[in-house]
Amino acid sequence: MAEFGKTLYNTVMEKRFYSYNDIHRTVKILADKVMASPLKPEFMIAIGGGGFIPARILRTYLDIPIFTVNIVLYEGKQTGEKGPQITQWLDKPDELLENRRVLIVDEVDDSGATVAFCKEHLSQHNPSEIGLAVLHRKNKPKKVELPQLVEHYFCGEELGDEWICYPWDALDIDNRN
Amino acid sequence: MAEFGKTLYNTVMEKRFYSYNDIHRTVKILADKVMASPLKPEFMIAIGGGGFIPARILRTYLDIPIFTVNIVLYEGKQTGEKGPQITQWLDKPDELLENRRVLIVDEVDDSGATVAFCKEHLSQHNPSEIGLAVLHRKNKPKKVELPQLVEHYFCGEELGDEWICYPWDALDIDNRN
Repeated sequence: MAEFGKTLYNTVMEKRFYSYNDIHRTVKILADKVMASPLKPEFMIAIGGGGFIPARILRTYLDIPIFTVNIVLYEGKQTGEKGPQITQWLDKPDELLENRRVLIVDEVDDSGATVAFCKEHLSQHNPSEIGLAVLHRKNKPKKVELPQLVEHYFCGEELGDEWICYPWDALDIDNRN
Repeated sequence: MAEFGKTLYNTVMEKRFYSYNDIHRTVKILADKVMASPLKPEFMIAIGGGGFIPARILRTYLDIPIFTVNIVLYEGKQTGEKGPQITQWLDKPDELLENRRVLIVDEVDDSGATVAFCKEHLSQHNPSEIGLAVLHRKNKPKKVELPQLVEHYFCGEELGDEWICYPWDALDIDNRN
């Protein structure tokens, strides 16, 4: 029990709570950065579930269509390590992506693994340029350094390695803790 | 100008503003209704873009996966009338839907046309049951009466024929009007 308690103590991270209006304001900052860049994306690819809400708010500013892919983290049976796996992909990827300027949207740049996996799969269909917009970037050791992976990298806010509490995960939106 | 002014005046509807926390509370009501029903959905189909935010919040309560389809309203070249058109569909619809219990998610039951169109296309892949969850239902003359179209109908809140202002459409979230 002592060891268990110690482990728990060591892994406690500070929680950072965001309200929906905080998120909306961060999306506006993100939208301004995208609009000021030479990417000029023709549409978004939201990575679900985290990218759905940022992408929908971003559409208010960018006024471009949203397409979606769904990727989950599954625990590998052999390794026990969690890795990304596609649960839904684009229905007509070649038709959509060939020679187009694309903006991937996700909530957070954490380890970088999910976005890197998504970018690799999108690249097979030859988009002309790929950008990435995330609400938050955690400054921590990464599996993949996303700013080096995509041609255009946009981030709303940089954080330390904190425990981000998004409003959409709240069971009681009026009493979060 | 007088005629123009008159027309404008006649088409002005009362605006009803919802905050994000209002929406989150309505999703909780909706989730309680879904959980109390015999549908027991295995996953959601969110209709984009309106269904993305409700579906993502709903997932916090229902804890089932989200799949997405994108449907837009296009103006017909011949008729000039707006009709729904699929821009993204499920990548493996038979595999996903056959004999499964499905919950369609959208933001509003307005004319009913988009959801009816979506339901018709989903039905071709033989799900065992189809439910529909919407944040809001407008009580007004309908193209399609959705409660009669789906086996399970869930609505967070009923309204008159009002102009709903969702928070995600705000350019300035702190000063909406």
